[in-house]
Amino acid sequence: MAQPEANFGFIGISGRGNSMLREFLSVPGVRVTAVCDKYEDRARRGAEIVKEVTGKDVEWYTDHRELLAREDIKAVVACTTWISHSRIAIDAMRAGKHVAFEVGGAASLDECWQMVRTAEQTGKICMIMENCCFERREMTLFKMIKEGMFGELVHFEGAYCHDLREEIGNGREIRHGRLVNFTARNGELYPTHQLGPIAKCLGINRGNRFLTLNSVASKGVGLHDWHVKQHTPDYYNYNTVFNEGDVVQTFLKCANGETVMLTHNCTLVHPYSRRYVIQGTNAIFSEAPEDDVICFDGEHRWKKFQPVLEANEHPLWKEYRTAGVHAGHGGMDYLVLCAYAEAAINDLPAPIDVYDTATWMAVTCLSEQSVAMGGAPVPFPDFTDGLWIERGPFRRGKFCLEAVCDEYFE
Amino acid sequence: MAQPEANFGFIGISGRGNSMLREFLSVPGVRVTAVCDKYEDRARRGAEIVKEVTGKDVEWYTDHRELLAREDIKAVVACTTWISHSRIAIDAMRAGKHVAFEVGGAASLDECWQMVRTAEQTGKICMIMENCCFERREMTLFKMIKEGMFGELVHFEGAYCHDLREEIGNGREIRHGRLVNFTARNGELYPTHQLGPIAKCLGINRGNRFLTLNSVASKGVGLHDWHVKQHTPDYYNYNTVFNEGDVVQTFLKCANGETVMLTHNCTLVHPYSRRYVIQGTNAIFSEAPEDDVICFDGEHRWKKFQPVLEANEHPLWKEYRTAGVHAGHGGMDYLVLCAYAEAAINDLPAPIDVYDTATWMAVTCLSEQSVAMGGAPVPFPDFTDGLWIERGPFRRGKFCLEAVCDEYFE
Repeated sequence: MAQPEANFGFIGISGRGNSMLREFLSVPGVRVTAVCDKYEDRARRGAEIVKEVTGKDVEWYTDHRELLAREDIKAVVACTTWISHSRIAIDAMRAGKHVAFEVGGAASLDECWQMVRTAEQTGKICMIMENCCFERREMTLFKMIKEGMFGELVHFEGAYCHDLREEIGNGREIRHGRLVNFTARNGELYPTHQLGPIAKCLGINRGNRFLTLNSVASKGVGLHDWHVKQHTPDYYNYNTVFNEGDVVQTFLKCANGETVMLTHNCTLVHPYSRRYVIQGTNAIFSEAPEDDVICFDGEHRWKKFQPVLEANEHPLWKEYRTAGVHAGHGGMDYLVLCAYAEAAINDLPAPIDVYDTATWMAVTCLSEQSVAMGGAPVPFPDFTDGLWIERGPFRRGKFCLEAVCDEYFE
Repeated sequence: MAQPEANFGFIGISGRGNSMLREFLSVPGVRVTAVCDKYEDRARRGAEIVKEVTGKDVEWYTDHRELLAREDIKAVVACTTWISHSRIAIDAMRAGKHVAFEVGGAASLDECWQMVRTAEQTGKICMIMENCCFERREMTLFKMIKEGMFGELVHFEGAYCHDLREEIGNGREIRHGRLVNFTARNGELYPTHQLGPIAKCLGINRGNRFLTLNSVASKGVGLHDWHVKQHTPDYYNYNTVFNEGDVVQTFLKCANGETVMLTHNCTLVHPYSRRYVIQGTNAIFSEAPEDDVICFDGEHRWKKFQPVLEANEHPLWKEYRTAGVHAGHGGMDYLVLCAYAEAAINDLPAPIDVYDTATWMAVTCLSEQSVAMGGAPVPFPDFTDGLWIERGPFRRGKFCLEAVCDEYFE
């Protein structure tokens, strides 16, 4: 059977968009026939990349609505800013295209609801491309959980600890969206990297849901300290007051009694870490500075996780390693793009759907409100309007994020 | 000059009291002349221990008020339950004795206030014996902070991760106080081990204070799971519903903008850990499953903490290691007992005073209230009634917990 194909538009050719576009061009069935960026130099660069990789000339646009008006395009990918991508997603679905976009939190609950309602009305895919859901470690832990190796789940922790002082401090030069967000906002600005995999493990929107959220923020002194260390007082942000606290921690309480604790930690010295912790009645897993560790009930001591990972590796990753792992972020960028492309080309449900997307993104705006109220609990919306109670696991295709999907375990 | 001495009473001869009594008998200047436990067998055992170690006969009591009525006794140590020790402390001060007691949280804010008011009125010492303040690692980190190596402090984490399922599950047999507390309560039941050192680093009650607290608890399934794994349905607690959540996390927000996150984690599989994390503008320290790690600004990677500890060791510990470290909990039990004895014998202020004691203990009852209100912020009392604003660091004696005290840095 011939590989089914479709025409895609690609919107947002920033540094990240650049590498995602290259990766996307290698996904089976993907034809990128139009690119777009609001900056003309970036839009032109996008067309050059497509030419370079495929040998074909494509149109470039600086207004995404012009791209969306093209009838030959079936679906789009957006790698734009945290503030623009849900607008673009809603426009895309209204124009009859599937859409997937880069990670980032929401600014308002209503933008989440709009994505949900538009996806429900149009039947189009609206998928946040949370690559960490497709990480080798995360998929293996997911499989181990589904096979019962952790027992009853009780508690998760995840984090985005990433020293971004330089990226934010040089944000004007590199046109990076983080700068304005760290200046204006105070909350869990980047929740999805560890929350995505955690939500999948907990069956959020499929038998479970988040009920409440609390967030607390430390003072924010790291960015100013960086400016003082790196620059002279005439530097443009030398005296800027950044609203974002250096350490923001967020609690989520689930309908089934589990807790999730997230940490956002980007403006102090911190080697990269997602601080992943899983606790169930039969085991505890913990990310660690050197090697990840695990301890099963009865063992009393940590042991290295690597041999356990190898013994329990998710079948998708086994197959992927045999075929040859693509580069972006250790290979997970390629998998999340494949998962979207497969669903979009064949008009099938995506493994990360609009309810997941809205739920994960909503953490940001809820967190800002809770921080402002001293960590007061805020209600978490049920974007499924009660469907979560009876929705079963998603089991279609090899990118289904289920260890027990038909593709592998018939 | 002759070593000054004093007569002490020792109350509470549980398993823990047993080892603390032996340790206390080796502290310079300490004469234990009376022992007490509400169980007669334990009280007799206390007298036997004193006889064994010192060769002297001492009175034993089953009512602490009888011991407190003895005029020859200058001060007491109490190793009783979380619910009884503040009552005993208040009785002791009213009877004109200094008092120090084992760690544990408070059940009510008023018990904390009573300790504060009684200490203020009587001028007696009321000290929680938080041994972790005297741990080698903790004292060295404290010294590094005071010397500016972490820059401006922003965020701390600490925990009590200790798999106590067996101790709690067998609580009736071993007459252990944890059982009833885990059955009846839900909150941060054991906050002080990491909070004590953190509060000292942050200058709490001396230029800083805790303003608000939020706590969130997971469901509590670990103890029931343990009973199902270990026992048959006729076991006395097989069907008990334990109120305590398996993982309770607590946020403290400080007057100077710092945050503290505490984890209580005692009823699931978990190798022992206090999960100590310190973040400032110049460095991050993190406890880790294998070796503790640190990263200074500009380094970008974790490195092992051990060589840094050795290069920056607190002078009290250098001296202590030269003289020979005593056994209990790696030596810190001995140091906290010495710190108390030195203050009590000489009628001097103690390095952990009643304000510290009340503040650290109050976390427990505040946490229970916040958990019950879904993590709502609760106001943290100022037990100093505003004195914290101008109180300077405590700098007396070699157990002063200050790296810059006169004893060492003239």
